[in-house]
Amino acid sequence: MSKLFMFEKPVGMRDTLPHIYEEKRKIKQSMYKEIKSWGYQFIETPTLEYYETVGTASAILDQQLFKLLDQQGHTLVLRPEMTAPIARFAAAKLLKEQVPLRLAYRANVYRAQQREGGRAAEFEQLGIENIGDDTVSADAEIIALMVSSLREIGLENFQISIGHIQYVGELFNQILGTEDRASTLRRYLYEKNYVGFKEHVKQLPLSSIDQQRLLTFLNLNGSEKCLDQAYKLIEGEEGLQAVRELKQLWGLLQEYGVDQYVKFDLSLVSHMSYYTGILFEVYADKVGYPIGNGGRYNDLLQKFGYPASATGFGVRVDYLLEAIGTSESTEETQCILFSKDRRKEAILQAKKLRKNGESVVLQDIVGVGDVDSFTSTFDQVHFYVGSTVNAEVKR
Amino acid sequence: MSKLFMFEKPVGMRDTLPHIYEEKRKIKQSMYKEIKSWGYQFIETPTLEYYETVGTASAILDQQLFKLLDQQGHTLVLRPEMTAPIARFAAAKLLKEQVPLRLAYRANVYRAQQREGGRAAEFEQLGIENIGDDTVSADAEIIALMVSSLREIGLENFQISIGHIQYVGELFNQILGTEDRASTLRRYLYEKNYVGFKEHVKQLPLSSIDQQRLLTFLNLNGSEKCLDQAYKLIEGEEGLQAVRELKQLWGLLQEYGVDQYVKFDLSLVSHMSYYTGILFEVYADKVGYPIGNGGRYNDLLQKFGYPASATGFGVRVDYLLEAIGTSESTEETQCILFSKDRRKEAILQAKKLRKNGESVVLQDIVGVGDVDSFTSTFDQVHFYVGSTVNAEVKR
Repeated sequence: MSKLFMFEKPVGMRDTLPHIYEEKRKIKQSMYKEIKSWGYQFIETPTLEYYETVGTASAILDQQLFKLLDQQGHTLVLRPEMTAPIARFAAAKLLKEQVPLRLAYRANVYRAQQREGGRAAEFEQLGIENIGDDTVSADAEIIALMVSSLREIGLENFQISIGHIQYVGELFNQILGTEDRASTLRRYLYEKNYVGFKEHVKQLPLSSIDQQRLLTFLNLNGSEKCLDQAYKLIEGEEGLQAVRELKQLWGLLQEYGVDQYVKFDLSLVSHMSYYTGILFEVYADKVGYPIGNGGRYNDLLQKFGYPASATGFGVRVDYLLEAIGTSESTEETQCILFSKDRRKEAILQAKKLRKNGESVVLQDIVGVGDVDSFTSTFDQVHFYVGSTVNAEVKR
Repeated sequence: MSKLFMFEKPVGMRDTLPHIYEEKRKIKQSMYKEIKSWGYQFIETPTLEYYETVGTASAILDQQLFKLLDQQGHTLVLRPEMTAPIARFAAAKLLKEQVPLRLAYRANVYRAQQREGGRAAEFEQLGIENIGDDTVSADAEIIALMVSSLREIGLENFQISIGHIQYVGELFNQILGTEDRASTLRRYLYEKNYVGFKEHVKQLPLSSIDQQRLLTFLNLNGSEKCLDQAYKLIEGEEGLQAVRELKQLWGLLQEYGVDQYVKFDLSLVSHMSYYTGILFEVYADKVGYPIGNGGRYNDLLQKFGYPASATGFGVRVDYLLEAIGTSESTEETQCILFSKDRRKEAILQAKKLRKNGESVVLQDIVGVGDVDSFTSTFDQVHFYVGSTVNAEVKR
């Protein structure tokens, strides 16, 4: 192979070193345990799906999809997210089973990146989907479970922003009239470019009252008190209903005892186009992007032939680790270095230590190039070499 | 999307249902723990690699590779196995670190299949690689670790067939002369088509002594006694050295106390072309194909610019589950069904039960279509509905 490629990985692809592997593993185990205790069932779906099935339903930009042709000539995609695959799975399963269905997953997802040094093209997500329950109770449950699993992994400084996609939809519809105008403004919101939003609003041919409504809308965030303002600002049943759902959600989150982690943001929208109701993002101290997000998507399962309401959340394991920070403590590993004549003794000693829960490298001294350099990486070294008395070296 | 595709998955791609997910998880956890206790460090490598780097080094047939183009026009592959990616990783890392290096992985690998109903196109492998140690001690260690981790997951009825690629090579070289003839015979061995092998040998223009040697070679399997016959059958230093290594390995495996799981098979070859020395396959009762395999590959790291000896093994998680069989015991899940007025009480009760390690679904009764059908799937149901006294239903 050419020198150029020898150690190279594709754009956005990364190796995970041992200590990061272990830190991530701990996070995943804690979350797994918590999610299981809420009665969610973990499943796995394939890495590759048909473009026509999951690719088109997935709400990820086409240019971000890794696509390939299978030997039958069909276009396949590396799953860009897990909600659409779970919807496919659930639609096939729901036909036979009772609802609501509580499913969970841990999976790598794939999004093509333009250049190196940018974002990861492969990352690990952990999430849940609650399918077939249209009550606000279901929305509250997934938010409460998210809080509870984030706390389980040791995260305390995080905040959940909650909005409602129908509120934005109704307001824009009333004031702007056309979907074209609405989508331009939605893009400013999605990019959290509030300055751009304001400037754009000022240039729109709207009455000063309507301009003011759009600017007031931008400030509809903070504690549950903003819901009253939101109620006053909106007309039309869909918008009012959205606020009523958020109020009900607030009450439920108080009963769950997780209200201190929550604030509202009526201007919250998502790049995931399948959301239809309550939606949210989670932010942690020290991390500049949402560590997780979720919401209600009542129309997606219909695409798989089985109309059913649904809500869920997903978190990124790499961002969770960034939020928690890697711990200082490394695992202890001992080394038993042996020569041929004392091998049997060494094997027995390794067995004994391992049985006691120790992590033990058993190494033939003939296989080591530089003994000093090799042994320097262990916390303890036992020599079973020639007539050497067992020497123990502490780093 | 078209009806045709609605629930479909690409050829060889499968969903993993909850109970299979949990059984696999148990297997992986036990193996992870054992492998860690032998001082191996887990790492992760990307799903996608450059074809020029890992694809060509991987020893998997080109037609079995899932290939795609990235946005820069390079050909990428979904990793078809883990040894080549680990070699890439190790070569980059070894330049800075001491050897031997002990690495481990759990990863999905991908092999394109021609038709549905055949083999899995995506499956999970767990394995280790011991890099930079050319001693037979290293070969013995990986076999001993494989035995010990298989026993940890509850497997007892399995057997390891051990061969040596240099023995076959030397014998074929001496008798057949050309690589063409050798590769035809090697294919019969790889396919374990011993009848075909014998018929082919009879048609070769060889002396009857050489024909007899090839037929005798086929019977070089069983206990360590066959190593003496093997020694007599071979000429040339490489072949003799191969037998000496196997004898030494036998002694080491006895010291590890794992010799009862081992037999020799001098006719063992692999479709993995990178093996250079001792190699092996593991068979379990009830499973018609090897559940794992491994061996020494001293030339692979050189392809990544860092010459180093190496040996390792990999097992397939799906085959391990097949070998062990799924257990009868399912996890217990309770359900708390509540109505609005008793929600708070229900939330507290769920919290309490979960804290005690129970798995509890908390469900708003309004969100359930058919209460009887829904509750029938739980081991216990608690009603917090209206003035209903907590009724418990046992299935």
